[in-house]
Amino acid sequence: MKIFNTINELRNELSEQRANGKKIGFVPTMGYLHEGHASLLKAARKDNDIVVLSIFVNPTQFGPNEDLSSYPRDFERDEKVAQNSGVDYIFYPNVEEMYPSKLKSKLQVINGVNVLCGEKRPGHFDGVALVVTKLFNIVQPHNVYFGLKDAQQVAVIEGLIEDYNIPVTLNKVPIVREEDGLAKSSRNVYLSEQERAEAPTIFKSLQNAKALIDAGERNSVKIEEEIKRILEEKTSGEVDYVNVYSYPELNEITEIKGTIIIAIALKFTKARLIDNIILTIS
Amino acid sequence: MKIFNTINELRNELSEQRANGKKIGFVPTMGYLHEGHASLLKAARKDNDIVVLSIFVNPTQFGPNEDLSSYPRDFERDEKVAQNSGVDYIFYPNVEEMYPSKLKSKLQVINGVNVLCGEKRPGHFDGVALVVTKLFNIVQPHNVYFGLKDAQQVAVIEGLIEDYNIPVTLNKVPIVREEDGLAKSSRNVYLSEQERAEAPTIFKSLQNAKALIDAGERNSVKIEEEIKRILEEKTSGEVDYVNVYSYPELNEITEIKGTIIIAIALKFTKARLIDNIILTIS
Repeated sequence: MKIFNTINELRNELSEQRANGKKIGFVPTMGYLHEGHASLLKAARKDNDIVVLSIFVNPTQFGPNEDLSSYPRDFERDEKVAQNSGVDYIFYPNVEEMYPSKLKSKLQVINGVNVLCGEKRPGHFDGVALVVTKLFNIVQPHNVYFGLKDAQQVAVIEGLIEDYNIPVTLNKVPIVREEDGLAKSSRNVYLSEQERAEAPTIFKSLQNAKALIDAGERNSVKIEEEIKRILEEKTSGEVDYVNVYSYPELNEITEIKGTIIIAIALKFTKARLIDNIILTIS
Repeated sequence: MKIFNTINELRNELSEQRANGKKIGFVPTMGYLHEGHASLLKAARKDNDIVVLSIFVNPTQFGPNEDLSSYPRDFERDEKVAQNSGVDYIFYPNVEEMYPSKLKSKLQVINGVNVLCGEKRPGHFDGVALVVTKLFNIVQPHNVYFGLKDAQQVAVIEGLIEDYNIPVTLNKVPIVREEDGLAKSSRNVYLSEQERAEAPTIFKSLQNAKALIDAGERNSVKIEEEIKRILEEKTSGEVDYVNVYSYPELNEITEIKGTIIIAIALKFTKARLIDNIILTIS
């Protein structure tokens, strides 16, 4: 496993690999790797000759009220996770390398951003779009891997690839869950014992919604209300949002049809958990 | 020479060439090719194994008051120019192929656009940036060629390549001139006989400015005034702008130093001519 801090060194290495006909898979992250990331790396390892992991805490996706400096970092541990996941190259640039000069343009995501987690983070997905575009151009991978835990991010990336004809295949990796169904997250450790016992209700409420839809329910408001009722009855958490949207457009819908997402954010005392399922109704 | 109307067919052909180690040069145009374009194609032919020309009248760079439908088109003639210039592939998509669905993001150029020709064409360079980003991703060339006649466009593209780490080398091709110094342009045919006789004054006024700077003049306002004086005295045209800016930043300057552009737009009865020189003061 090699670690690159500069764009040029990484590019030189990768262009050699590309010239040799190697297939390149790429997993962009902000580091502090957990099992979710490992699942992305595992998928990349399976499909490609070369697996590139980037670790870069991207300042442009943090809002003025979000604390960039306190974002958790642990490169040594990340290195071990990468090694164990079969990563070939880690791209680990500093901010100066990624943003050497004032930007001369602005990339603004206009679709599907003022909903779900994006509603309270104005500009967040603009920063994600910017860094992802840059990273795609630096790595020029054949395949990229994003986790469906952040389905809104996946939708934004999908839009970006379409808008700009980015020559990459987007691989959407399913949510990794604990045995009881709770979506894995580095935030789960912040749950109290009682909250941890309640948390699987989130996925159960999604499964219940799926069962209702399978049984013929097509009213999105009814689905949302049923999920809220379950979460309020069975957990001590505070519902941040429960939404049914078209996917990947993330438009409001009244009638459930086509491909949709049901997304939940639930606030516990010290952790806000998110989860979702994506369904296609034929 | 092959002609491609779809992104997929072009990509399939090019990825084969790329896999064979061929170097790809790209010249994006809106068609109606003239000698300026031919000089770009000639430069591309010299440096690359494969030369790709795109012909696409891009609607997103036309303002609401600019007539997209009356933009001149002549594909048959363009085909001949391309053939004579040694083009290998023409990419000739329709609007549906380039913009199949509503855009989910917005790319806005914020630097160097509200000056020179951009001042009166709000949004024009946003459209240029969008289509050029798409075309770069479609063709994935090693080299791209743009003419310094439109030095502002070159500056915008240069900024775009920097902002997004686009993996391409930008080749800036010098202005092609008539024997009397007039910059070649398809608009020159709209000049009256008298105007055509006066038009070389534009380049002469730029050469005069260079001579003044070589002799030690560093005041940009004095240079601008001297050029205006010459244009007003020696031509019947109306000065649209005469500006000295830093290049490629296109910031206003008072003292001439570093790399600068001196740019002129002069309106004759039926044609508005532009010209410029770029100088580096050591």
